[in-house]
Amino acid sequence: LTSDELFAHIVTTDELLVATGDQGWLTGMLDVEAALARAEAAVGVIPAGAAEAISAACRPDGFDAAEIGRAARGGGNPVIPLVARLTDAVPSEARDYVHWGATSQDILDTAAVLVARRAGGLIAADLERLAASCAALAERHRATVMTGRTLLQPALPITFGLKAAGWLAAVTDCRHALDAALSGLAAQLGGAAGTLASFGPDGPAVLAAFASELGLPEPVMPWHSSRQRMAALAGALGMAAGTASKISGDIALLMQQEVREAAEPAGPGRGASSTLPQKRNPVGAAAVGAAARRAIALVGLFYEGLAGEHERHLVSWPVEWQSLGDLLALAGGAVARTAETVEGLEVDAGVMAQRTEDLAGALLSERLNLVLAGRMGRSAARTAVTEAGRKAGDTDAAAFAEALLSDPDVAAVLTRAEADDLLDPTGYLGANDVWIDRALARHNAADGL
Amino acid sequence: LTSDELFAHIVTTDELLVATGDQGWLTGMLDVEAALARAEAAVGVIPAGAAEAISAACRPDGFDAAEIGRAARGGGNPVIPLVARLTDAVPSEARDYVHWGATSQDILDTAAVLVARRAGGLIAADLERLAASCAALAERHRATVMTGRTLLQPALPITFGLKAAGWLAAVTDCRHALDAALSGLAAQLGGAAGTLASFGPDGPAVLAAFASELGLPEPVMPWHSSRQRMAALAGALGMAAGTASKISGDIALLMQQEVREAAEPAGPGRGASSTLPQKRNPVGAAAVGAAARRAIALVGLFYEGLAGEHERHLVSWPVEWQSLGDLLALAGGAVARTAETVEGLEVDAGVMAQRTEDLAGALLSERLNLVLAGRMGRSAARTAVTEAGRKAGDTDAAAFAEALLSDPDVAAVLTRAEADDLLDPTGYLGANDVWIDRALARHNAADGL
Amino acid sequence: LTSDELFAHIVTTDELLVATGDQGWLTGMLDVEAALARAEAAVGVIPAGAAEAISAACRPDGFDAAEIGRAARGGGNPVIPLVARLTDAVPSEARDYVHWGATSQDILDTAAVLVARRAGGLIAADLERLAASCAALAERHRATVMTGRTLLQPALPITFGLKAAGWLAAVTDCRHALDAALSGLAAQLGGAAGTLASFGPDGPAVLAAFASELGLPEPVMPWHSSRQRMAALAGALGMAAGTASKISGDIALLMQQEVREAAEPAGPGRGASSTLPQKRNPVGAAAVGAAARRAIALVGLFYEGLAGEHERHLVSWPVEWQSLGDLLALAGGAVARTAETVEGLEVDAGVMAQRTEDLAGALLSERLNLVLAGRMGRSAARTAVTEAGRKAGDTDAAAFAEALLSDPDVAAVLTRAEADDLLDPTGYLGANDVWIDRALARHNAADGL
Amino acid sequence: LTSDELFAHIVTTDELLVATGDQGWLTGMLDVEAALARAEAAVGVIPAGAAEAISAACRPDGFDAAEIGRAARGGGNPVIPLVARLTDAVPSEARDYVHWGATSQDILDTAAVLVARRAGGLIAADLERLAASCAALAERHRATVMTGRTLLQPALPITFGLKAAGWLAAVTDCRHALDAALSGLAAQLGGAAGTLASFGPDGPAVLAAFASELGLPEPVMPWHSSRQRMAALAGALGMAAGTASKISGDIALLMQQEVREAAEPAGPGRGASSTLPQKRNPVGAAAVGAAARRAIALVGLFYEGLAGEHERHLVSWPVEWQSLGDLLALAGGAVARTAETVEGLEVDAGVMAQRTEDLAGALLSERLNLVLAGRMGRSAARTAVTEAGRKAGDTDAAAFAEALLSDPDVAAVLTRAEADDLLDPTGYLGANDVWIDRALARHNAADGL
Repeated sequence: LTSDELFAHIVTTDELLVATGDQGWLTGMLDVEAALARAEAAVGVIPAGAAEAISAACRPDGFDAAEIGRAARGGGNPVIPLVARLTDAVPSEARDYVHWGATSQDILDTAAVLVARRAGGLIAADLERLAASCAALAERHRATVMTGRTLLQPALPITFGLKAAGWLAAVTDCRHALDAALSGLAAQLGGAAGTLASFGPDGPAVLAAFASELGLPEPVMPWHSSRQRMAALAGALGMAAGTASKISGDIALLMQQEVREAAEPAGPGRGASSTLPQKRNPVGAAAVGAAARRAIALVGLFYEGLAGEHERHLVSWPVEWQSLGDLLALAGGAVARTAETVEGLEVDAGVMAQRTEDLAGALLSERLNLVLAGRMGRSAARTAVTEAGRKAGDTDAAAFAEALLSDPDVAAVLTRAEADDLLDPTGYLGANDVWIDRALARHNAADGL
Repeated sequence: LTSDELFAHIVTTDELLVATGDQGWLTGMLDVEAALARAEAAVGVIPAGAAEAISAACRPDGFDAAEIGRAARGGGNPVIPLVARLTDAVPSEARDYVHWGATSQDILDTAAVLVARRAGGLIAADLERLAASCAALAERHRATVMTGRTLLQPALPITFGLKAAGWLAAVTDCRHALDAALSGLAAQLGGAAGTLASFGPDGPAVLAAFASELGLPEPVMPWHSSRQRMAALAGALGMAAGTASKISGDIALLMQQEVREAAEPAGPGRGASSTLPQKRNPVGAAAVGAAARRAIALVGLFYEGLAGEHERHLVSWPVEWQSLGDLLALAGGAVARTAETVEGLEVDAGVMAQRTEDLAGALLSERLNLVLAGRMGRSAARTAVTEAGRKAGDTDAAAFAEALLSDPDVAAVLTRAEADDLLDPTGYLGANDVWIDRALARHNAADGL
Repeated sequence: LTSDELFAHIVTTDELLVATGDQGWLTGMLDVEAALARAEAAVGVIPAGAAEAISAACRPDGFDAAEIGRAARGGGNPVIPLVARLTDAVPSEARDYVHWGATSQDILDTAAVLVARRAGGLIAADLERLAASCAALAERHRATVMTGRTLLQPALPITFGLKAAGWLAAVTDCRHALDAALSGLAAQLGGAAGTLASFGPDGPAVLAAFASELGLPEPVMPWHSSRQRMAALAGALGMAAGTASKISGDIALLMQQEVREAAEPAGPGRGASSTLPQKRNPVGAAAVGAAARRAIALVGLFYEGLAGEHERHLVSWPVEWQSLGDLLALAGGAVARTAETVEGLEVDAGVMAQRTEDLAGALLSERLNLVLAGRMGRSAARTAVTEAGRKAGDTDAAAFAEALLSDPDVAAVLTRAEADDLLDPTGYLGANDVWIDRALARHNAADGL
Repeated sequence: LTSDELFAHIVTTDELLVATGDQGWLTGMLDVEAALARAEAAVGVIPAGAAEAISAACRPDGFDAAEIGRAARGGGNPVIPLVARLTDAVPSEARDYVHWGATSQDILDTAAVLVARRAGGLIAADLERLAASCAALAERHRATVMTGRTLLQPALPITFGLKAAGWLAAVTDCRHALDAALSGLAAQLGGAAGTLASFGPDGPAVLAAFASELGLPEPVMPWHSSRQRMAALAGALGMAAGTASKISGDIALLMQQEVREAAEPAGPGRGASSTLPQKRNPVGAAAVGAAARRAIALVGLFYEGLAGEHERHLVSWPVEWQSLGDLLALAGGAVARTAETVEGLEVDAGVMAQRTEDLAGALLSERLNLVLAGRMGRSAARTAVTEAGRKAGDTDAAAFAEALLSDPDVAAVLTRAEADDLLDPTGYLGANDVWIDRALARHNAADGL
């Protein structure tokens, strides 16, 4: 709601706050009224002079969002007072043509589309930045061996490049989804009940001209009570937010003092504590995670909002207004801050390598298991390997090899040299490079988005 | 987020916007820092003079929320820059004692409690207003017969007073729930990990003095990572929002042109359309329903937020900040606007009575069914009444009586005079007055809340 | 959860319950284990004979879902006991090759894809049925004039065909969205940490063969911790559910006794009440609305689930299992029951026409307003029309014409014959036919989906 | 939905599945019909013999939930077919008195209350178990020093007992909340529109007798369209689920291989992986977290469900049925499994102590900071301590003392012996014991719940 400066900058960017706040909406609504007038003049519905006068008056600096917002309480939406102010602002001969034939929802819906496309452009650019950073990490660290972890426990060796490639693939999905959702956002013009009756036979031509003025696609028919476009957009934004949260969450876990394999970028005041001088908090992950969770809580409103009454929804429609702005600002904020984190990410390849060595016994036990299965049978192999693991604990290659070879049945089929070789993490990375290459290729192919 | 004046006034009140926005939080945080200093002085942890100087500096007009908010991005919360500004603002001999022994979360959590109690007080007052209006309607309309509707279809006669009593009982529940949740909000003081270690043995005494300074209950132990209080508050606010939505939604349905039994208060610009001169929209219901749905979408964040990491939650905690403000403003806005609607509600008792007469055949068929069941057996009675209903359609008493008595089996056990009497809606209101009296009595008993 | 027969049939279909319940999942998991074995044999990783034996054993009737489910508690997923049972079920020489190189998540994720595609096929077919019914109504009722309603109040005349075309356009959106989401569901195979290390260099070839065996697309890389596909599917299902809810909700509102313009199909026991013999409840709308709201509450879980830990998510992954089944069954149930309702919809064109005539004064006031604006100026026209509306109330053409022409300024520029003509609803339908034709054309173009 | 045995046992218990599934609901509905008949006989509304016969027939084994469920589709709720079957099951002279004067919602709502109280009793018992285990850990480990972590980073020393006391305080909150919500669940009896009109003046007496038969509180008035009780219950269950998730999540983090300070209980098959012999997964935390997140997604449905139409809600009411069962089963499952985990928790006090020593420099820097602030001024102290931290890294007491004392300004005011003493974690636990005692005392006082 209004006046949240204390917290807003933590979760989003100035550009998004402007694009999704009063300024963004006011500009959007005025751009729509101007385009409507010009379209009507083009089709011959109103005089060209009136359209010029209206278009000229549609400049945000002539309007006071707070005053209009207060006046909106009576009629339930800000278009009513905006049209009154705009009518006052044009020369008398143009007055009768302001907002001609449109309904409040035509203006607000199309303004919402403009807000979404402008903020969406910022988000798309930040997704691109994030993708580029992930791609760079995937490339640079394709041979940086680290511990792969499933269910928060060490599993197999991977590379940090593979982890980054996974992030990249996810971000590329988000770029495609956002692009599709934004492209689907069509102009809205239907008049009071969707028939454009006040234009007589000219309705469809006015809609076409109006959409063209704004560079928006034309819908099959007005969508006042068909909000599928908005739900799809909300879904795409939820996907971007959740993906940002995944990446920043992984980094926070890697940044734990007990893990220390990567860290958010340092800098003056970054991650400082109000009491503990030594502390470095993963504040990026906190901010991103919080923005994402709040964004995702809003996504459901748009799916619920598909249901509503007849030719215009009583409740679902006003639910969308601030929810859309907040969702754009929060999802976009999550993406932007994650991009910032990944760009400056501190990766400690030494710690990664050391831990992989320290845990080689555990991380490679699948491999030993498979090799021994071929020599002793699967069940005997599993028993032997599990038993060695139990004896040696989470331990390095040497200790594990020793424990394993202390079993005479194993020693009968496996030499120590073989064991040492099999326990080298860099030799058990499977399709690591293939996946990285494929993720990079798809990223490169997405460059045109 | 920031700068939403265009829409905020539609869904909430100025008082709530102030109480839950930057002003409310800044005041809250400064009140907390001041109380902390005074409490520490009282226990002898810091010099009395320092406490006085700090307390004197804790005035919101000396601080710039926007500037602090921007500075908060690095450390992830606004307390860090606020403490820096506050430290600069006190005389040098007091500087070392600002924020002494506290952690950022102590300040923000206790400020959240203050924000919640202040905004909560406004909401409680509006719930009272709403309850009083419902009570007045329940009393005034206890004999105003209308059509009771279940699953959007006419069922039995009720009175409008009974409907209002149902609203009243629901609002009374909300008052109790909100009161309990607000009372449970305790002061927060634990220091960097909850032990108050920096106070040595004085920790508990400082906490007690701090809570007492602020007029807040003392917790059993610090609740940095135990957010049950916040979840309970969110639940109570969700209940208030949902209840407001129920009431305003009933009114919107009664206001349909085809029903017209009640209407939101009229007035200049209220419910006006931007294109249709004749139209009167239920804009109150639209605003309340939208505020309520948005509020309820936020409730879940607080239950999810119970889960989090160790001694301070990484993501759940920052999720709370703006969500709490928004939830208070939205739920409170829904209640306030519903109170306004109910206070000025236009009730058309004539239309209610007329419709009940027009539908008497349908509305009283249960009664006929029961009486005939006693005379013909349940199954035969049901068949006869259903058949009469099918013949007569949704119709008035006379036509229905005729249709029913055209069945010779019915005519054998029921006279026309009896039928006419049984088809009088005012004679089939059951416990109507008992329920109204009970709801009013409970409302009166809640006056002390 | 288990054993909900009492309620499940109200909200969904038998086919969906089978496809998304134990039978569907068990079949899915076994199909995946079989395809894995065959793929591995094709690449030469395991002997062809073993693959045949495993494939032959993968028949659901040999496995007890309840027993496996109970055994799943220890390891946390049903694949572990399923693999144990399957291993027991194959000849000893094939035992070592069961589940070779796969991890539990490979099996469960690919089974989830199969469950989703099979249930999704049922839903797609029901969306088609629903679209076809909407299209038929749009065509049949393109000239059936009715009252268009915005914010639950009469606005302008529309046709019932236009309303149905709006539903059709929305359902067509859902078909495209579901088709895209289902097509995106790829096979999952990555082994314990996504590298397919146990296959050595053969990993990518095994994945390709595996995907091909199942007729599924191959992913760029394993997606164990990249759940974008699942979120997109959830979004598409939420869109289908919400759209069904919109349509069935419109019908429930039209079915109100006070409106009676359309009704859910009648039939033995349909909409019966346990006490009121005359009553006909919109039970379809109740069931659809409830299924949709429950479905949409689940959608958020999939967006939240994008966040999770490292190479396999601890909590987000198990959240998906039953949520996916429930979401498919609920969204699909909502669509299926809406299709049933729309197919048998009772449309009362007479009541629609009568109401439009009764309200012609209100419904056509925009038109009068526009015509008079051209003759008297916009502001004078608005005043005159509003005043006439106030005098005449919601009323028919004649009364409104009279009220309007009693204003001498109006009478000076408008004849009674003109007024009568302008107040004919059938003459003010604007682009009605154009929109219907466009929605039908897009529907026809979607036939290949 | 139906037939989810494969997954249900992972997230909940057999007792809860029975109590919240078909068996629980069928028993509940029949108990309600029986109590209704007995109450009506007690008030003299129906013959005593009929009541006895009806009561005798109300045994679940005579009814087939699946058959009733299928028959429920037409009328939209299972009470209609259940009443038909029950009517067939009683002697002919009692038939007319079955379900006398009640509406379907009376039966289903009161059955829901019985289901909730029975399942709620199981959950309350598991909360007690969980509380007792937490209390035992708090007592036993009150001196087990460990690393306190905020925002996933080491902060100050705490004890494991304090952590357990925090869990205990949270669980005690849940016990109070659940107790209050369950106590508030009242009997439902209002007849077709809430007036109990079919009982004439006897309505309130029948309600009183009915409530008393079932041992339930009597409501102020029927609550068919006032669902505050249900929302409050949902909130309490969400709180229990979220709290369980907090506890099990903390354990999963402590169980990370890199932390290893505590672990879920081991045992045959517990935490096993399908491929990795050495692995021990935190499967309890996975199951609890998943159950909790799914439970919390359902909570919002009950707050949304407060809004609905007139005297009975079209959509909100059927939303409640399976959602309530699922919510009880999931929240209860989360609590039960967390109790199991905490009861068998493996605590490694040695690792905790070792890590605290290893990090003593960091963990005690606040203390050094405070002491030096008193001697050098706050700002100089902060600089010195931060600098020492930078030099020494996350390190033990000796290295940190050395780094610190290498600063001559520090060495001037602090001796090495003092530094060593100040760097002892056991000496900086503040109110640790006070909080533990207070949490235990409140737990003991809650024993009567």
